Amino acid sequence: MLPYKNLLIIDKNSPIAVFRQIATQFIGLIQGGKLLPGTELPSTRALAFDLDLHRKTVMAAYNTLVSEDWIDSLPRKGFIVSLRLPEVRPKSYHTNRLASYEADPGFLYKELENFNLPPSFAKKPDIVVDDGFPDIGLLPAEAILREYRRVLDYPYLKRINSGWEPKGSPDFREALCTFLNQTRGIDIKSGNLLTTRGAQMAIYLAASLIIQPGDKVIVSEPGYFFANLTFERLGAELIRIPVDNCGMRTDIVEEVLLKHPARLLYVIPHHHHPTTVTMSIERRNHLLRLIRTYKLAVIEDDYDYDFQFQYDPYLPLASGDHEGNIIYIGSLTKVLGTPFRLGYMIAAEKFVQEAAKWRTLIDLRGDVFMEHVVSGLIKNGELMRLIQRANKLYRQRCHFLADLINTQLGEVIEFTRPNGGMALWLQFQKDFPLEKLIKKNSALGLEITGSIYFQGKGTQYNAFRFGFASLHEKELDKAVQILRTSIYGLK
Amino acid sequence: MLPYKNLLIIDKNSPIAVFRQIATQFIGLIQGGKLLPGTELPSTRALAFDLDLHRKTVMAAYNTLVSEDWIDSLPRKGFIVSLRLPEVRPKSYHTNRLASYEADPGFLYKELENFNLPPSFAKKPDIVVDDGFPDIGLLPAEAILREYRRVLDYPYLKRINSGWEPKGSPDFREALCTFLNQTRGIDIKSGNLLTTRGAQMAIYLAASLIIQPGDKVIVSEPGYFFANLTFERLGAELIRIPVDNCGMRTDIVEEVLLKHPARLLYVIPHHHHPTTVTMSIERRNHLLRLIRTYKLAVIEDDYDYDFQFQYDPYLPLASGDHEGNIIYIGSLTKVLGTPFRLGYMIAAEKFVQEAAKWRTLIDLRGDVFMEHVVSGLIKNGELMRLIQRANKLYRQRCHFLADLINTQLGEVIEFTRPNGGMALWLQFQKDFPLEKLIKKNSALGLEITGSIYFQGKGTQYNAFRFGFASLHEKELDKAVQILRTSIYGLK
Repeated sequence: MLPYKNLLIIDKNSPIAVFRQIATQFIGLIQGGKLLPGTELPSTRALAFDLDLHRKTVMAAYNTLVSEDWIDSLPRKGFIVSLRLPEVRPKSYHTNRLASYEADPGFLYKELENFNLPPSFAKKPDIVVDDGFPDIGLLPAEAILREYRRVLDYPYLKRINSGWEPKGSPDFREALCTFLNQTRGIDIKSGNLLTTRGAQMAIYLAASLIIQPGDKVIVSEPGYFFANLTFERLGAELIRIPVDNCGMRTDIVEEVLLKHPARLLYVIPHHHHPTTVTMSIERRNHLLRLIRTYKLAVIEDDYDYDFQFQYDPYLPLASGDHEGNIIYIGSLTKVLGTPFRLGYMIAAEKFVQEAAKWRTLIDLRGDVFMEHVVSGLIKNGELMRLIQRANKLYRQRCHFLADLINTQLGEVIEFTRPNGGMALWLQFQKDFPLEKLIKKNSALGLEITGSIYFQGKGTQYNAFRFGFASLHEKELDKAVQILRTSIYGLK
Repeated sequence: MLPYKNLLIIDKNSPIAVFRQIATQFIGLIQGGKLLPGTELPSTRALAFDLDLHRKTVMAAYNTLVSEDWIDSLPRKGFIVSLRLPEVRPKSYHTNRLASYEADPGFLYKELENFNLPPSFAKKPDIVVDDGFPDIGLLPAEAILREYRRVLDYPYLKRINSGWEPKGSPDFREALCTFLNQTRGIDIKSGNLLTTRGAQMAIYLAASLIIQPGDKVIVSEPGYFFANLTFERLGAELIRIPVDNCGMRTDIVEEVLLKHPARLLYVIPHHHHPTTVTMSIERRNHLLRLIRTYKLAVIEDDYDYDFQFQYDPYLPLASGDHEGNIIYIGSLTKVLGTPFRLGYMIAAEKFVQEAAKWRTLIDLRGDVFMEHVVSGLIKNGELMRLIQRANKLYRQRCHFLADLINTQLGEVIEFTRPNGGMALWLQFQKDFPLEKLIKKNSALGLEITGSIYFQGKGTQYNAFRFGFASLHEKELDKAVQILRTSIYGLK
């Protein structure tokens, strides 16, 4: 007789009925070969006593097992493990059923090298400096709750439950279309718009449709890590074009295009990631000319267009004449905060159609719930008010941090004040021990969680991004003081 | 002088300031070549008169354009388009800036054939029969709103805004882990769990890691359309195994495995899609043996496990002994409703790690907002109560619909009563004009939006899925009456 008292673990606080817990565990023992066909089970009375349960509970468990053919009830003999169970063989010592997921899989699969998931913090940091996230405190929480209440109303829910719109819910696409036409100097219809889970999904989709293994893809150096990784995983060979203070060097792009047929160019004209540089108008027009001449597919990643500090923003490349060759990608995540993953792709209607199909393979449909909430925020003007509020605040924080670093750390850190966005790109001298600095910061409660480039480790940069938008002035001040202490400590 | 009065369109109700609307449109005209360098602009007074605006508004627009170097202010001459604009050339007749997105792209891209996006309804149908969606009316709306309120609290938001957890938020993964261990007879740790946007993303990720072009993948026939399409798009060759009343024919799977090395097997043991068949215990054990023997990678898609009508459910294959080779995929969407896209993948920890990396390429991180809301629903027992309520209701509806079809349409329609799930698989005789029936239904206000198989069109089935879970008895009755009318009308 097995030691059921130890084998069967009952959790009376669990939402699962106790009889079901028992039945489930018996099935485990049978499947795991611990109970062979024909084995007698303890009487309901005995098991109830052992487990300190009511006999009816055990009875219910046994009835369940009988009804599912795991055990049989024999007159006078009680319950035995069914003889009709097909070949449940006793297991060898290592085939403990519960341990299946402790094993490594026996099959082959691809591994993504040179990329590690972020570690969890050993202890909660005092200040987290991110890669350039918005200040979630600006979120109009009450207005959002009102939208959730509106959407959670039964007739509304019923309508959105039965629809299936792989391109995004029509309400949201209409509202977003209007918003984008008004703010970006483009003129699109909702057929040009695919909503996605964030800019990254739009990049992945566009790249999946365009890249064939071996294709050449033009990117900037330094460049956006997750875009480059995506292109490489899809089989592309990257051609890296330097970035200077006017953005990507389009003269070099032209030289490259004269030599090689490239399949795709990826560009971030506003607040380039990681360097925060904005591309000049001259380069923009040059690039538009190249796009037309070479019928070049271009992904314009304009993830934080909405945060430009000058009086009137530069328009996207997509507002120029590109003859349908620009796939324009953006996101509302940088406006609303990282919990709101809502991005979009704008392209020629036929391309959007194909991208929507590919999207269904990845993610049948989007988050219609959040889409309806945010379309409410667009329609009632909350989104635009949020952008205006945020823009003003981020500009202040940008200058506050820039002034602070200039005065306190100007000898060690170099940067160009960006004309928008949410981060500074802090550059250190080549021989500066940046890796040590980051560790030292961490020990003092300051975690740099955004992009960090260590000189020599596959890059010529010794720099990191300092997201200023999500921190108020006191926090920025404290972060700079810790940085200062760390830098002094290294000397 | 251009007809500015017609060219410049001002929307006074727009959240965009009017001066900005004007500036944006001027930039368009310059970029579009309609205004060449050196061209004089109308005086602020004249333009204000033409557009019926205050002169200060036009002045603000012009100042913006000056500050961005699009135009120059010349003493006594007024404003001209800047001469320093790099090569803005006049456009030929077809290069209207606004029309860029009306063009088809000049570059090449992949097209997904044999798959069309769903059409929009010409008119709102009276009744939508879906593929098997839950009844959104069961959603505990007030409890959900309470969770949104909890999560929208600033300190909470601040915490979830700065974190980055590609596998899903730790709170949600812990809660989901407990829920899955309690309900599925598995014993996993949160390291075995990746949360995704729905089961489809989990299928895509698993397949992306496993399939190399040319690999053989074993699926059922008929099978789940979006899984098969995904495998094919990743380059797999499908081997189709028939399904009978006991599920996938594992004897044929074994024959196949003896002949070919297959890379992956995809199986839906509970309420197979589209046929609703549940795999027998005998076949389950046989399949587990094959998995161990051949170290076969298996995707077990258990999308509606939570809805089994028998007293105690069959456990998933993943609860058996598979030595880490089963990738178990499920979804909360079938519990909460289609607006809640939350799925998951359970696998060996190393595989989950790689899948999480691939996931960042598709979708940097999940919907932490919704994850926190749903983890609240799991912890306070709302989710389990919802499942119990729904299960009871769906069983009633299943039998109600099944009885109705048996009595009213039994001569024409054949089906096997499923032991769970949310749909019936209604089969028609081979020569029945199903395509006509669907059109006729549609004209009468009944839209069948789920899976439909037309005999001869690439399939041997003449059948469709009738989702019963989302319709109450009156609606089910009305749907069957329309079906009956249509069928009579065809005779």
